[in-house]
Amino acid sequence: MDIDALRSRHPDHWMRAAAIRALTLDAVAAANSGHSGMPMGMADIATVLFEKHLKFDPKAPHWPDRDRFILSNGHGSMLLYSLLYLTGYEDMTLQQIKDFRQWGAVTAGHPEHGHVAGIETTTGPLGQGIANATGFAIAEEALRARFGKKVVDHHTYVFAGDGCLMEGVSHEAVALAGMQKLGKLIVFFDNNDITIDGQVSLADITDQTARFAACGWQVQEIDGHDPEAIHTAIVAAKADPRPSMINCKTHIGLGSSAQDTAKAHGALTDPKLISDAKSVYGWTTGPFEVPGDVKHWWESLGQRGAEARADWQSRLDALSDGKRKQFDAAIAGEAPRKLSATIKALKKQVTETAPKQATRKASENVLEVVNPIFPETIGGSADLTGSNNTKTGDLGIFSPDNRTGRYIHYGIREHGMAAAMNGISLHGGLKPYGGTFLVFTDYARPSIRLSALMKQPVIYVMTHDSIGLGEDGPTHQPVEHVSSLRAIPNLQVIRPADGVETAEAWEIALTTPDRPTVLALTRQGIPTVRTDHKTKNLTAQGAYVLAEAEGKRQAILMATGSEVHVALAARDLLQADGIGTRVVSMPSFELFADQDEKYRRRVLPAGSAVRVGIEAGIRHGWDRWLCGERGKEAKAGFIGMDSFGASAPAETLFEKFGITAEAAAQKVRDLL
Amino acid sequence: MDIDALRSRHPDHWMRAAAIRALTLDAVAAANSGHSGMPMGMADIATVLFEKHLKFDPKAPHWPDRDRFILSNGHGSMLLYSLLYLTGYEDMTLQQIKDFRQWGAVTAGHPEHGHVAGIETTTGPLGQGIANATGFAIAEEALRARFGKKVVDHHTYVFAGDGCLMEGVSHEAVALAGMQKLGKLIVFFDNNDITIDGQVSLADITDQTARFAACGWQVQEIDGHDPEAIHTAIVAAKADPRPSMINCKTHIGLGSSAQDTAKAHGALTDPKLISDAKSVYGWTTGPFEVPGDVKHWWESLGQRGAEARADWQSRLDALSDGKRKQFDAAIAGEAPRKLSATIKALKKQVTETAPKQATRKASENVLEVVNPIFPETIGGSADLTGSNNTKTGDLGIFSPDNRTGRYIHYGIREHGMAAAMNGISLHGGLKPYGGTFLVFTDYARPSIRLSALMKQPVIYVMTHDSIGLGEDGPTHQPVEHVSSLRAIPNLQVIRPADGVETAEAWEIALTTPDRPTVLALTRQGIPTVRTDHKTKNLTAQGAYVLAEAEGKRQAILMATGSEVHVALAARDLLQADGIGTRVVSMPSFELFADQDEKYRRRVLPAGSAVRVGIEAGIRHGWDRWLCGERGKEAKAGFIGMDSFGASAPAETLFEKFGITAEAAAQKVRDLL
Repeated sequence: MDIDALRSRHPDHWMRAAAIRALTLDAVAAANSGHSGMPMGMADIATVLFEKHLKFDPKAPHWPDRDRFILSNGHGSMLLYSLLYLTGYEDMTLQQIKDFRQWGAVTAGHPEHGHVAGIETTTGPLGQGIANATGFAIAEEALRARFGKKVVDHHTYVFAGDGCLMEGVSHEAVALAGMQKLGKLIVFFDNNDITIDGQVSLADITDQTARFAACGWQVQEIDGHDPEAIHTAIVAAKADPRPSMINCKTHIGLGSSAQDTAKAHGALTDPKLISDAKSVYGWTTGPFEVPGDVKHWWESLGQRGAEARADWQSRLDALSDGKRKQFDAAIAGEAPRKLSATIKALKKQVTETAPKQATRKASENVLEVVNPIFPETIGGSADLTGSNNTKTGDLGIFSPDNRTGRYIHYGIREHGMAAAMNGISLHGGLKPYGGTFLVFTDYARPSIRLSALMKQPVIYVMTHDSIGLGEDGPTHQPVEHVSSLRAIPNLQVIRPADGVETAEAWEIALTTPDRPTVLALTRQGIPTVRTDHKTKNLTAQGAYVLAEAEGKRQAILMATGSEVHVALAARDLLQADGIGTRVVSMPSFELFADQDEKYRRRVLPAGSAVRVGIEAGIRHGWDRWLCGERGKEAKAGFIGMDSFGASAPAETLFEKFGITAEAAAQKVRDLL
Repeated sequence: MDIDALRSRHPDHWMRAAAIRALTLDAVAAANSGHSGMPMGMADIATVLFEKHLKFDPKAPHWPDRDRFILSNGHGSMLLYSLLYLTGYEDMTLQQIKDFRQWGAVTAGHPEHGHVAGIETTTGPLGQGIANATGFAIAEEALRARFGKKVVDHHTYVFAGDGCLMEGVSHEAVALAGMQKLGKLIVFFDNNDITIDGQVSLADITDQTARFAACGWQVQEIDGHDPEAIHTAIVAAKADPRPSMINCKTHIGLGSSAQDTAKAHGALTDPKLISDAKSVYGWTTGPFEVPGDVKHWWESLGQRGAEARADWQSRLDALSDGKRKQFDAAIAGEAPRKLSATIKALKKQVTETAPKQATRKASENVLEVVNPIFPETIGGSADLTGSNNTKTGDLGIFSPDNRTGRYIHYGIREHGMAAAMNGISLHGGLKPYGGTFLVFTDYARPSIRLSALMKQPVIYVMTHDSIGLGEDGPTHQPVEHVSSLRAIPNLQVIRPADGVETAEAWEIALTTPDRPTVLALTRQGIPTVRTDHKTKNLTAQGAYVLAEAEGKRQAILMATGSEVHVALAARDLLQADGIGTRVVSMPSFELFADQDEKYRRRVLPAGSAVRVGIEAGIRHGWDRWLCGERGKEAKAGFIGMDSFGASAPAETLFEKFGITAEAAAQKVRDLL
């Protein structure tokens, strides 16, 4: 690598890019941890992108029509932090750069959405950023179709490395983007031939260019250190109707003694290496010091965006009142005012007709009334549309030929779907929900975790939620999934017991601003248990008394979803024996935990009444409610699963695995 | 589709393939559920493969040198069951076919490994079979290199559909297989243009042929209903040194009125449709009846395999005594006798030197002494070799140029690694272990679940097991993962507290025949807590008394892994206050649950002593031990995490999140 030639050919560009490299070296050295090599390798691409193409305004970082810049190879976080600092994002101060990776700093080891404006999504778990990007690009297309090109017209740019492209989720994202012809999605592949273990060829010989082409992408190959080639490629990418992948040959740790080695992937902290690299760069200022002219140039870049934003604002102001209101409402992300009344009316109707139905069907019934009044919803399924009941009549299919469609055939791509929904939600203006079988939350789990970490109100419509799935057998029967989803912080899991609770669950999911929801829904028909109409959303309390004990309360049966009617039947058996039994419906552990202690005590009073939990899943996590936070509250038992399921009709399975009213009643008797 | 032309061109072949189609129609109709279309579409390929190529002997279905046949699109299970019945696998009786998808039958909705010989792996969760297959093919290459082509020389054949190829894990598997040049892996792509939601083009436009070629595969495109083309393609695939993908244009539900529609994917149960299809086939016998000559022909196919097996047996018998013993030991899958003494010696050494070290480093120390005496181990990492400490000096790198290497660079493919390890384990002859960060078990979770469901003793070396990971921040810090892994049935999770427990954990993992193990290991150094040498493997009891209370026992502190030394320090604080405190080290909930009640009561006696659990993870699942199975056992508290982590040095995080000896002691005082 002839650094001198690069420097002399584009001296101004060189110093501007060197600012990223120098800040990275300094911050990583100060933290004594981090990843130096990627920012050093991709600095040229970032500089050209920000200089000539990226539409951004650091003074209005939430501007809805900004381009999105996504660092999928998030370990190179100092690249992003440097860019935000250099271009003048208010909250990205020099002190934050100096406090890289320290407690309380916004400059976490990997970019964390919400820490500071300009971090469009949380990355670090590889492959997530590029998969989020499909969602960003889908959202842009959908909103452009709805509101017009005058107010929605921006690109999604992604930096991705070998790690991102080896991860399976990248395949799902790349194929989905190719099929959807997301022409405003542009990915820069940091082709540096290096991973943590060494040369990429130790583990991969994939021709990435050919691979993207096979999925319907425009592809280009360039020298990632040639500013003119970078610019030309971006121009060509923008002009092509397909999503674009620019395969950029780069050098990790450029200009340092670790260049082109796996060592450069991690933290370069050796003082001599750093000073040698800086002198190769011609960088003469002290640590964390950027020469005034260089900083000034970077700050001036926002001007282009500020002007574009002013133009955009005047176009927005020129919208009709109605359109403008719709646009503002969409961006605000609030549920329509009619939602509450709509849900109440549906609840009333369900209570009156008291159907025996699957909650997945009840969920479809909710969507049938919600989708027409909530134009921001955008549904989909990972190829289980008819099983997940996620498509309603008024939704067209979102496709290259129909950008106003509000239903996405995500394909057999649970992980890609979840990651795309994160991107749609992060973009703003839409409310994504998507379905698959509950058991396949395992496939999507890394992205579900990120929904929770990023506080995105993505809605997961997870049907076939127990052995009630029946004949498909143990591979398709969730046993541990409700429990293991409850384990994820900031995720609300709701397992409704009937059509009423399903309506309430949807109302919660659609109005929660800051956390994702998993709806666990049955395949099989179950009776309506909420036979008294209550306007209040009882599910929002997480748990509530569904049936009170007659006589002295000796037992409390706690159940969720399809086992609530089992609890009611068990109560009948026990009451017939004179054993006073309360039934608590408990659709959401998380929502119940959010209630104040007084309410929780009211539902689950400490004392001599024994408690039995009933759920067609494992006990793991139930004891908190059975025994109480501080223990000693009650004698307790559980009716559920402690193994994988089996292949047979659902009724047989409930019988064989002992999840019956008789078993629950007997458990109470054993404990008394 | 001109069925008549197909019939008349190859009349014998036609009726043999029709047997699969007819049995499938009958079994699905009897079960009133299942998937008819795939077996009907792939019957021709299966017939040619079994007739002319597959090396199998139904009378010796566990023959180590058999070809492996993997149905990755496992929903078409009736294809496999039909083949096993037709060719005469003893346990696949006609009654089992009639009991398809019923309680107690071996013919589950999806093929379940262990139900009957001939089901090489459990499939159904899409993409798993093809990803297992890379492991099967790796195992074949490794064993061939060790024992020679005379006794190890077989192919791995895979049927895969659009679903398998859309799933991300297929990308990881395809790229790994291409890089590793697994020339004896042959995949048939069931290119029928149909998924559950409809035409494939609704969600995918990928040129699968080009995609596989981009990953280094030989590719061919054929008519999947032309017996000659199928045969010719297999011959060419076998001759090529690369893995082969044969893109087979097929018709789902061939010959029925549902042909080429999404309806055919599921259960075709309409009597008229079935009888019409049968008459198109020229199939005139009653339900479940196969004409004698057709059945006889299918049964005769085993003869070719039986002869091959006899030849193989004589070659095996001709091996030297030493080689033969090694071969038998490898296939038996037992740990070497020296293992126990080796582990004991290491434990003694650790106890004597009592180092402060990370358990990932302790794990490397175990591998340094185990790998040389255990020639079946085959290690690897998902591109975190230096961090997972999974590579020891004596292991060469497994690659196309070095098949005797025992270390695999799996690339940034956690899911593909786990699925490949399942395949290696299922193949037999090797003991796979592989590493990544614990947080990325989320990426591998579908395959980890299948390790457990299939009872495969795969070893997951999961390092950086808590906020102790430090600066990389919340995306890389497992908080809920130990808990959510404990939720998976039949998975043993072991979180050792020091070098001694790490050695014991490895001994357990290496000698357990029927379940997978997750080793949760620290990044950070922690003190040795086992300072008295015990030859007995205490970790095998799951939990044990590490330090007894002095004076009246008022508290029991229970901790795992890096928090055991915190518990000991808390005990010091409490004993100084005169509060008698027992410390229980609890490396494995599952192993403790396996102990008899008497032992469990000895470790955790009910009574007035309060119990506090300490783990740098969430409480979810702990209450079982804090309160007791039946509740009311003890007052209880917990010191751990209830949110995502943060980016900062590890010591800061433990302090900020309150996981300290002081906090644990205070919790005890609060409860007393």
